[in-house]
Amino acid sequence: MNYETPLFFQVMEYANAAGRDVIDMVSGNPDWEPPEALREGFTEYAELEPDRLQYPPSGGLLELRQEIAARRGVATDQVVITNGGGGANYLAMARALERDSGNEILLTEPVYPYYPGKTTMLGGTQAFVETASNGQLDPVDVRNAANSNTAAIVVNTPNNPTGAVYPERTMRELVAIAEEYDAILISDEVYDHYDLSEKFTSALSIDSAHRIVTNAFSKSMAITGVRVGYAILPPDLVEAAKSRHMLVNVATTRPGQYAVLNTLRETPPEYSERNRERLRERVVSFTDALEAAGAAYTRANGSFYVMARFDGYPGTLENVARLIDEAGVAGMPGEAFGDSRTAWVRFALVTPRVKEATERLANYFE
Amino acid sequence: MNYETPLFFQVMEYANAAGRDVIDMVSGNPDWEPPEALREGFTEYAELEPDRLQYPPSGGLLELRQEIAARRGVATDQVVITNGGGGANYLAMARALERDSGNEILLTEPVYPYYPGKTTMLGGTQAFVETASNGQLDPVDVRNAANSNTAAIVVNTPNNPTGAVYPERTMRELVAIAEEYDAILISDEVYDHYDLSEKFTSALSIDSAHRIVTNAFSKSMAITGVRVGYAILPPDLVEAAKSRHMLVNVATTRPGQYAVLNTLRETPPEYSERNRERLRERVVSFTDALEAAGAAYTRANGSFYVMARFDGYPGTLENVARLIDEAGVAGMPGEAFGDSRTAWVRFALVTPRVKEATERLANYFE
Repeated sequence: MNYETPLFFQVMEYANAAGRDVIDMVSGNPDWEPPEALREGFTEYAELEPDRLQYPPSGGLLELRQEIAARRGVATDQVVITNGGGGANYLAMARALERDSGNEILLTEPVYPYYPGKTTMLGGTQAFVETASNGQLDPVDVRNAANSNTAAIVVNTPNNPTGAVYPERTMRELVAIAEEYDAILISDEVYDHYDLSEKFTSALSIDSAHRIVTNAFSKSMAITGVRVGYAILPPDLVEAAKSRHMLVNVATTRPGQYAVLNTLRETPPEYSERNRERLRERVVSFTDALEAAGAAYTRANGSFYVMARFDGYPGTLENVARLIDEAGVAGMPGEAFGDSRTAWVRFALVTPRVKEATERLANYFE
Repeated sequence: MNYETPLFFQVMEYANAAGRDVIDMVSGNPDWEPPEALREGFTEYAELEPDRLQYPPSGGLLELRQEIAARRGVATDQVVITNGGGGANYLAMARALERDSGNEILLTEPVYPYYPGKTTMLGGTQAFVETASNGQLDPVDVRNAANSNTAAIVVNTPNNPTGAVYPERTMRELVAIAEEYDAILISDEVYDHYDLSEKFTSALSIDSAHRIVTNAFSKSMAITGVRVGYAILPPDLVEAAKSRHMLVNVATTRPGQYAVLNTLRETPPEYSERNRERLRERVVSFTDALEAAGAAYTRANGSFYVMARFDGYPGTLENVARLIDEAGVAGMPGEAFGDSRTAWVRFALVTPRVKEATERLANYFE
């Protein structure tokens, strides 16, 4: 399939143009409030002296990098502030491909569509490792797929779209495989604040010169539009990544960095705990309804997503459009995530109308 | 020279570490107030509903693209909102190199160092066309340098670092050469609001499928740190550029787009007129002092910059450091802009202390 134009926007446009009320379960946009300190950050920024409106250091505001480094237990020099998680993944994948240690990127299937899109754009080739029906990744399969041409292994935990959270032994094995094949494990952990299983293990907990961790404040602070994320790189890879960042974007937006720094400093952990609690309730409510409707589904251990399979209703773009028109619920077609989940539809639980959506689906499929 | 790490930051760090008061004439950061509507935009944004904090459309907020399209006389579909002018130039140069119509990029010398850096990063090769001592570009020289391998001609008008503004006949010829060699003229017009000559001609005024215009609000609104710019592409190049933008950055920061849109709508032309007037006065004051000090200099017809040559004091990094330590004035070494201006130092007139700087230089070189 054509990963260069992810289907997200296409489905959302179709839903917006539908002649009826549609519950949006397509995008990964949180529907809840950002921390109060985020709003205060922008209000404060609006009053700063002109020099504070000018170029920040290319790698990011020093105080923000220090704050992240302290929280993640790494050196400040290893942190590069990027244009969201997307920018961080782009830098990480480019770096892995430019190390002259292979041209192939191993991806998991189902796959977050931006990863293969970035791979192709960067001139790499891709290979897929299929995950289990519960979304778990077997490191043995990754080892079998790895070879001397492997430049990177890209994983996402907690996972979009499966909701799987990889346990520590998986992360350890992935780092070991990356080391063995002189590749880079790129661990995209943008949903780390939405681990519902308490089993989440960051790749940062396994020290290695062969792993890059990417993250962003888009999901944890409910601000996907602000575009502030970061990459944590091994010391020998960081300068080249910063150089690319400078040549592509010069720097990441400063008001966003300022507001994020204020939020990190001022927001108590209860903010994230409340978000997880809300998500837990939605997962239960939604999967109970799927159960009652006789659908198969994945149980989200993290991230925002539940995948569902309805008998005789495969997750094609056509069926997703039909679901919008006939049931008033918009999901993402499983085929957007590669060949392994074409029978499935992904629903994002980031709408206050989850209960209403379950009723609509139950009525439609009963 | 190594264009991958532009010298800007290096010189600024040296100036900041100096044990004395230094007048910063290094960076291109305006020192004046942004329009009031810019600040209001951020204040308003801080109060919006959560859904307005989420992903904007990848190509940019529709209303901002419409506003730009109306002002520039192009179709809204041709406008892509980017992470500043840097992001726009990156997309434009990538597109030119990916058209399978050559691998070489023609640049002018002296050169804005990001252009060769981007060229190399994107896998292109570069060739330089030298400009006259007043910074003007002779299209005959460009035509002589163009060949079947020419993918793009990148120009910057008003020019950094020479202050030259290319007249209409130059722009027409450049478009014609691009058409003749199936190349793309990339016209970076980020200083268009700082045309002091009233001779500025945008490449947009010459309709062609072979030109891309890049611009940003960084300089015109005095907000280099906000990172909002745009590219205007021919219809057949725009989709691929948007796709790359999506795969690299997902989207451009939404609070910045919101504040810029508010500023475009609410700011009278007097704001820019006052900025030009201030700049005109600074140019006169600074070049008068250079004249009195017996230095050679370029007369800025646009942009923020004046280049100066002091006898026996070539524009090396070493001499620029000496000027910081001994005169308390920081400029950019001419060698940062390629081989043609190694005898020169570039001074940015974006400090309220221009007069003081001229006195320091006059005392130092007398």
